[in-house]
Amino acid sequence: MSSLLVNAGSLPNIPWEDRPQTSNPEKEIMWRYSKNPVIPRNLTIHSNSIFNSAVVPFKDGFAGVFRCDDTSRRMNIHAGKSKDGISWSIADKPIEFIKTDPDLPDSEYKYDPRVVFVEDRWYVIWCNGYHGPSLGLGYTFDFEQFYQMENPMMVYNRNGALFPRKIGSNYAMLSRPSDAGHTQFGDIFYSESPDLIYWGKHRHVMAPRSSESAWQSTKIGAGPCPIETAEGWLLFYHGVLTSCNGFVYSFGGALLDLEKPWKVLARSRPYIINPRELYELAGDVPNVTFPCAALTDKDTNRIAVYYGCADTVTGLVFGKADEIIDWIKKNKL
Amino acid sequence: MSSLLVNAGSLPNIPWEDRPQTSNPEKEIMWRYSKNPVIPRNLTIHSNSIFNSAVVPFKDGFAGVFRCDDTSRRMNIHAGKSKDGISWSIADKPIEFIKTDPDLPDSEYKYDPRVVFVEDRWYVIWCNGYHGPSLGLGYTFDFEQFYQMENPMMVYNRNGALFPRKIGSNYAMLSRPSDAGHTQFGDIFYSESPDLIYWGKHRHVMAPRSSESAWQSTKIGAGPCPIETAEGWLLFYHGVLTSCNGFVYSFGGALLDLEKPWKVLARSRPYIINPRELYELAGDVPNVTFPCAALTDKDTNRIAVYYGCADTVTGLVFGKADEIIDWIKKNKL
Amino acid sequence: MSSLLVNAGSLPNIPWEDRPQTSNPEKEIMWRYSKNPVIPRNLTIHSNSIFNSAVVPFKDGFAGVFRCDDTSRRMNIHAGKSKDGISWSIADKPIEFIKTDPDLPDSEYKYDPRVVFVEDRWYVIWCNGYHGPSLGLGYTFDFEQFYQMENPMMVYNRNGALFPRKIGSNYAMLSRPSDAGHTQFGDIFYSESPDLIYWGKHRHVMAPRSSESAWQSTKIGAGPCPIETAEGWLLFYHGVLTSCNGFVYSFGGALLDLEKPWKVLARSRPYIINPRELYELAGDVPNVTFPCAALTDKDTNRIAVYYGCADTVTGLVFGKADEIIDWIKKNKL
Amino acid sequence: MSSLLVNAGSLPNIPWEDRPQTSNPEKEIMWRYSKNPVIPRNLTIHSNSIFNSAVVPFKDGFAGVFRCDDTSRRMNIHAGKSKDGISWSIADKPIEFIKTDPDLPDSEYKYDPRVVFVEDRWYVIWCNGYHGPSLGLGYTFDFEQFYQMENPMMVYNRNGALFPRKIGSNYAMLSRPSDAGHTQFGDIFYSESPDLIYWGKHRHVMAPRSSESAWQSTKIGAGPCPIETAEGWLLFYHGVLTSCNGFVYSFGGALLDLEKPWKVLARSRPYIINPRELYELAGDVPNVTFPCAALTDKDTNRIAVYYGCADTVTGLVFGKADEIIDWIKKNKL
Amino acid sequence: MSSLLVNAGSLPNIPWEDRPQTSNPEKEIMWRYSKNPVIPRNLTIHSNSIFNSAVVPFKDGFAGVFRCDDTSRRMNIHAGKSKDGISWSIADKPIEFIKTDPDLPDSEYKYDPRVVFVEDRWYVIWCNGYHGPSLGLGYTFDFEQFYQMENPMMVYNRNGALFPRKIGSNYAMLSRPSDAGHTQFGDIFYSESPDLIYWGKHRHVMAPRSSESAWQSTKIGAGPCPIETAEGWLLFYHGVLTSCNGFVYSFGGALLDLEKPWKVLARSRPYIINPRELYELAGDVPNVTFPCAALTDKDTNRIAVYYGCADTVTGLVFGKADEIIDWIKKNKL
Amino acid sequence: MSSLLVNAGSLPNIPWEDRPQTSNPEKEIMWRYSKNPVIPRNLTIHSNSIFNSAVVPFKDGFAGVFRCDDTSRRMNIHAGKSKDGISWSIADKPIEFIKTDPDLPDSEYKYDPRVVFVEDRWYVIWCNGYHGPSLGLGYTFDFEQFYQMENPMMVYNRNGALFPRKIGSNYAMLSRPSDAGHTQFGDIFYSESPDLIYWGKHRHVMAPRSSESAWQSTKIGAGPCPIETAEGWLLFYHGVLTSCNGFVYSFGGALLDLEKPWKVLARSRPYIINPRELYELAGDVPNVTFPCAALTDKDTNRIAVYYGCADTVTGLVFGKADEIIDWIKKNKL
Repeated sequence: MSSLLVNAGSLPNIPWEDRPQTSNPEKEIMWRYSKNPVIPRNLTIHSNSIFNSAVVPFKDGFAGVFRCDDTSRRMNIHAGKSKDGISWSIADKPIEFIKTDPDLPDSEYKYDPRVVFVEDRWYVIWCNGYHGPSLGLGYTFDFEQFYQMENPMMVYNRNGALFPRKIGSNYAMLSRPSDAGHTQFGDIFYSESPDLIYWGKHRHVMAPRSSESAWQSTKIGAGPCPIETAEGWLLFYHGVLTSCNGFVYSFGGALLDLEKPWKVLARSRPYIINPRELYELAGDVPNVTFPCAALTDKDTNRIAVYYGCADTVTGLVFGKADEIIDWIKKNKL
Repeated sequence: MSSLLVNAGSLPNIPWEDRPQTSNPEKEIMWRYSKNPVIPRNLTIHSNSIFNSAVVPFKDGFAGVFRCDDTSRRMNIHAGKSKDGISWSIADKPIEFIKTDPDLPDSEYKYDPRVVFVEDRWYVIWCNGYHGPSLGLGYTFDFEQFYQMENPMMVYNRNGALFPRKIGSNYAMLSRPSDAGHTQFGDIFYSESPDLIYWGKHRHVMAPRSSESAWQSTKIGAGPCPIETAEGWLLFYHGVLTSCNGFVYSFGGALLDLEKPWKVLARSRPYIINPRELYELAGDVPNVTFPCAALTDKDTNRIAVYYGCADTVTGLVFGKADEIIDWIKKNKL
Repeated sequence: MSSLLVNAGSLPNIPWEDRPQTSNPEKEIMWRYSKNPVIPRNLTIHSNSIFNSAVVPFKDGFAGVFRCDDTSRRMNIHAGKSKDGISWSIADKPIEFIKTDPDLPDSEYKYDPRVVFVEDRWYVIWCNGYHGPSLGLGYTFDFEQFYQMENPMMVYNRNGALFPRKIGSNYAMLSRPSDAGHTQFGDIFYSESPDLIYWGKHRHVMAPRSSESAWQSTKIGAGPCPIETAEGWLLFYHGVLTSCNGFVYSFGGALLDLEKPWKVLARSRPYIINPRELYELAGDVPNVTFPCAALTDKDTNRIAVYYGCADTVTGLVFGKADEIIDWIKKNKL
Repeated sequence: MSSLLVNAGSLPNIPWEDRPQTSNPEKEIMWRYSKNPVIPRNLTIHSNSIFNSAVVPFKDGFAGVFRCDDTSRRMNIHAGKSKDGISWSIADKPIEFIKTDPDLPDSEYKYDPRVVFVEDRWYVIWCNGYHGPSLGLGYTFDFEQFYQMENPMMVYNRNGALFPRKIGSNYAMLSRPSDAGHTQFGDIFYSESPDLIYWGKHRHVMAPRSSESAWQSTKIGAGPCPIETAEGWLLFYHGVLTSCNGFVYSFGGALLDLEKPWKVLARSRPYIINPRELYELAGDVPNVTFPCAALTDKDTNRIAVYYGCADTVTGLVFGKADEIIDWIKKNKL
Repeated sequence: MSSLLVNAGSLPNIPWEDRPQTSNPEKEIMWRYSKNPVIPRNLTIHSNSIFNSAVVPFKDGFAGVFRCDDTSRRMNIHAGKSKDGISWSIADKPIEFIKTDPDLPDSEYKYDPRVVFVEDRWYVIWCNGYHGPSLGLGYTFDFEQFYQMENPMMVYNRNGALFPRKIGSNYAMLSRPSDAGHTQFGDIFYSESPDLIYWGKHRHVMAPRSSESAWQSTKIGAGPCPIETAEGWLLFYHGVLTSCNGFVYSFGGALLDLEKPWKVLARSRPYIINPRELYELAGDVPNVTFPCAALTDKDTNRIAVYYGCADTVTGLVFGKADEIIDWIKKNKL
Repeated sequence: MSSLLVNAGSLPNIPWEDRPQTSNPEKEIMWRYSKNPVIPRNLTIHSNSIFNSAVVPFKDGFAGVFRCDDTSRRMNIHAGKSKDGISWSIADKPIEFIKTDPDLPDSEYKYDPRVVFVEDRWYVIWCNGYHGPSLGLGYTFDFEQFYQMENPMMVYNRNGALFPRKIGSNYAMLSRPSDAGHTQFGDIFYSESPDLIYWGKHRHVMAPRSSESAWQSTKIGAGPCPIETAEGWLLFYHGVLTSCNGFVYSFGGALLDLEKPWKVLARSRPYIINPRELYELAGDVPNVTFPCAALTDKDTNRIAVYYGCADTVTGLVFGKADEIIDWIKKNKL
């Protein structure tokens, strides 16, 4: 089998379960981990909930940055490590970033991190409180010391996802301009930067859709950082439907042009995962499945996606890159 | 026992369970099927959810029209058949209506069907997307081929329920004028038509009530098509309460005058069913019990009501016509 | 000069002033009466305001139905007569309609009338309070006695305008489905009836437009009853823009297909009249110009439009049918 | 062990379970009763739900006033008695108050009672419908006959909690000024009265907090009547967070100055209890934990708090006064 | 002519103009001062606007307390004096109240004062900022030194109006419970106090009305302090209608029972004054006429009402007590 | 007199009138042009309104970029020229920008321009429609040909104002992040760019204030491009108050640090100009005074500010730089 996963490495120890017998690939292109939630809400001493979290391969195991709301319902991000991607040890204290410039403004809060390796280090990007929701950007070499850089975008913005390599000669990012509250709208935009400090060339990527794909009719946002494949950038992204009882967060997939990622090659009309298990339906925010990280193994095309469940715990779903890409193309809007 | 169910037929194979020992008739006048939900969310290959559905006796078994949202969260209606009213076979594809007039506008979406036999055929009435929520109307002789007629009412309207016979020399319908969103108001109106194309003589039937019957304080709408009884038209109808966390859909019952159905003879102050089982409390829309169909057996006064649960699955409740009518009269507003 | 005004009569005494020298036809296709407001707010003993009113030729002068809010701010419609269309005598008491059927529901309030002659009588159509805003319909032969018929449409509806002749074998009407409050949306629909009682064959005519014609971006509604011309039905219609300080009502013009009036042949991108005189900018509702009646003279192509100003007084504007139609075609969306 | 519970009595039969082995006091300062919900929703013949209820020691057992919504979703309060505080007998009919003055206005509805002994009798205070939500006040000597007094505050007000003794020479109360709907704001105020009829000297006590303690960021309100301790008045109070899917009700604790109770000595940044069990997450209103009563035993420092769960059932949590007070001081805002 | 004005004094120098010839008493029961606005917006050095102000007879002339918003749009109240009630000298600086108790909380802002003489002094009552809009209360003997007392009611409240004598043995006040913003509702309530500090015995007086008197359909509030007449307390009160462009403030009149002022004897269906002059239609808040003070002369039954115009300037209208009372009774709801 | 206007040129022909005798400098630090509005709404053939416009010295006269909404209420910007700054000739057609890069996205609409000379050319910055309100940037050398560059910021943003020189080695801009509608919030931010394409180093400058300066309590935004003075950058900025009838736009002044312009040295508590003339109070949007351009003459310290009036016409006010700066410092928040 030739791999679709361009520039990806081998990851033989990727967390994995085979598709269960009862699962019909036409009905569900990805399937849930049988022991979900993989991370419980009270893993650390002060945690109210652990969800919307970023996981990457690290050394011979895994590392991650986790959204841990504490029992004051303060939002922050914590570092963690794991041998197998299933059993995690997460720091009791939030990450204390070292400022790369003493004039950098402080964060009022941090949430919803993504992590991606670019060139020589791991970049962390998150929603950063700075006179409203903004994007925060930092990096680490070792998941011990983290460095904070300039906020890459104007407020109000959320759901930033950095690409794992430059596009042309520029760094590239997806993000969603937003407002200061429970935003009722949201498109995905693409931006570039020569230096990760100054950003421009903003291009519109995707807008919500209406009744022909209602799970993504209110707003959409990038999930894990885009995954390079022979068929284009594979993007898992969340979509929101507004019911009479509030927001429902599902997620689907899209393929973006490799060199002009603001061009959408295909985008799934159906969702891939929607809230239907009890730990996704009931919790601090009912009816949320929100992906923030994906592991891949180029040798087997395996993909494991970590996603927040009901803003309370973390779940895990599995799939095969080739099957997912075929499915997106066959089910595109 | 003389039957209250006028013009109804015998239905010895009506789905049925006797009232359980633990059920107190003064506390609950109808009781749930012990194996609820009777129809699971994923019965068809593309279904996200199956609920708010219409079931009728057909030949020696049952047929129905089902609201099946697919995994793109598109709303549509599908035909189905069953031997026993419990085990259903539902078509993977939505009903493709044959237009009775080529100039008929297309539907943008369809949901919440009711089905009723009038004169020589089964009429289907549903919420039909046409520049906003409108009513759609069609018919079938065999649940194989379906024909679509003119939309019977102006946008914006929902919850249309046709009467099983003419009132005077006109067809008759209940419906709820509405707006284009998650409507915050809603009364039940009655209308007539000589030909099912042109409609008029609109009469107000019932308005929501306030704190003296708060489960129906925000809006109300007809459930199954009205059931003719010696005491008047028996109408199951849903009512909505607005909590700080959204809408709660319960349902109660009313009796309408046989010849002037816009006159309300009695209307239940308490609800009959409200969301309290887990499959009613958690799902795509928490806290919804929404009746769309009723089977009756004139020989035993048995009634079986199919209702949508949490906008996700379909439930079944049982009761006796005589007991329900007595209870409505005793508990009337 | 051959007339464009099909089926219209001669009206040599149409109220009229020639275009003033300072008026540039490219800039303003219609011009205001120099003594506006033509009807003051306090003409009758109890009136708070007189506006949004219907005027027609009658015998050797003019008659009309006027919206007169009283000093309790109750909304009702009053009959009036005039020799010259300028000086009006309006009844102190509202019209008391004789019901054509004793079962007709009462009106809770009446406002925004239109009047049109069809076949043998003058029809009056207005917004009629019946469990929310509905359409009311009646007729008169003499502007002394008025008869009320069935409400022609379901609640919630406003801005009904009857066509002056049948389309095919049916009566025809424009209206705007609505909700129960200060509606934030509104499209114009077309409906037919064989008998003015039962209505159906509803067709969508026009929707609001967005930034390319922002004066009509929130909602639109028919003004005077459509005027038959050789080029199609000439429709003056109001459009609403939502500023940060509320609604602004302007009006423009459209041409509808003579036999299929739901087909729009042309529709003006610019407005014809917008609020800019002090009596249009300040009053009970600032920034409203709302047309409800048009007089025409086939011999001269003259048109005189009566329109409500700031929901307080009545204004008058003049134009030439041929110029207006040319302008609509040249400035169409 | 010297008791912190000033003026409290011995209550050896206080409902109690020891902290379970699996409970970490640093993680949760109070722990749930293992057989929660202690009072089910359908205990009385007409009850839809029993929650937000007041319990006190009475004779050799316990008495209480309970919010019982009936199956018409009418809100009212019922008297009840219990030997052990676990098994309750609640009256089928609501309390019928005897008016102390025949001119007293009637209640439109009653909900969310608190009960406290002051001087010579038990006072009941509740949310009383009187042209909107107001406070109601009454008393009983025997939980058989109840007397209603003047409403102690202007509408709109909720969550009144009387102090168990006078402050200086005046009666004292906490309450939360409110509006007429699902209020989006709410601070706790303190007021005094010489005679329980006329009230004044209103003082601001606490406001909601923002992201540093987000569980109490929308509004807050007093829970059980304040408990006198050597360290100040111990107040359990609820706080509300607004998620994109509605309100979440948690509760924490505060210490108020003994003589100037509007001065806050300490206030917990973390919540003590938040919705996380299924009976707290799903029900008539998901995600509600709402305390209304506390029992104390001065000999053991034991505290048992009754709280409403999902506006549907009643739960019970346990803790030790000394531990709770230490924890509030250590975790104060 | 026997006077209707009970307990009122002679005021031969009351500002006055006779009804103009063009004014029809059936059309307008009160008439405007020909030189309105009587007080311009920029009378003091820092004033942005002067409106909603209280005027009383004082010594051989007049004194008053005036709402003067400054050019920072801060709201405060200033003392002023006048020989004739027309030409005013108003202090550049706001009133600095001397606290009668050092623990009294500070005011965040003050607006909309009323002034009334009770027993031995002039009481001032206003809207007082204290964690939201509250009522403020103070007194003066000389309009030089002012003393501030306890806030008489809980937040949120506005439009307090003290009665000029005790009712029974208690002081009495009208007020309007409110919320913290541009309140969308509002009824008038009555309350009593033995000492002006502690308040109770709250009674509902009047609610808004709907379409039968739409000028008072959103909310209502007391205007000047009630005027004692042989026919009952004469109350001028404002009413608000919500148009699509915001609030419209008009005012009407009511008669309250002399000994039980919460009983309404008559209440005018039409307004007395509504915004129709340019200085009432355009200004900081368009379409506001808001009365706060009334002068009376018992010898002539003359009444002069001062009212805020467009929240910008102060106007004056005149009428005769006997005519106004007759008109209210003849035009009552 | 030594000039405060650093880097400014002589402008002896600046439009000017001396302060009128009746104007008190303590009351109003700037005064209106006696012939306001200086630009009428209908100056061009298709204009509905001309306001919020940018004016600069050009050759021996003046040039400008004007917001001209046309009679379709489309928003666009037009070039214009004038000998004296009073009498203007404005192009009938909007500016057609030449794209500096063919991949530049199109503008959906343009409004609210500012113009400033930096280094070698005139830069134009405006609100540019690109999937919502964004900033647009372009330049011209001659006001004949205009070139469009990359949008300098992410959507959603408005009120961009470029500094007339680099700060350090970077270009600098003020702007206001926003949302997609009639935004209810808005702070001023500062950003830098090395090349006018990539932007970063975003810094918060000023937030709205509450009741201590209520004219700027809802949102604020930069007016004309900042003016360099010996005392700091002089910034005229608009502020918005939300009344019950919508937004009120006034403007005040601030001084920003010359080298770190995100540091506010002083900011006026009172407004400088607020809506009070009829052409400011009535028009397409009542109650708006919105400055976009300032001319300065270093020899006389004269400043002339052009401002939009009621979103309909353009006004002109005059003042002296030294007096204004003194006044800001004396009246600072």
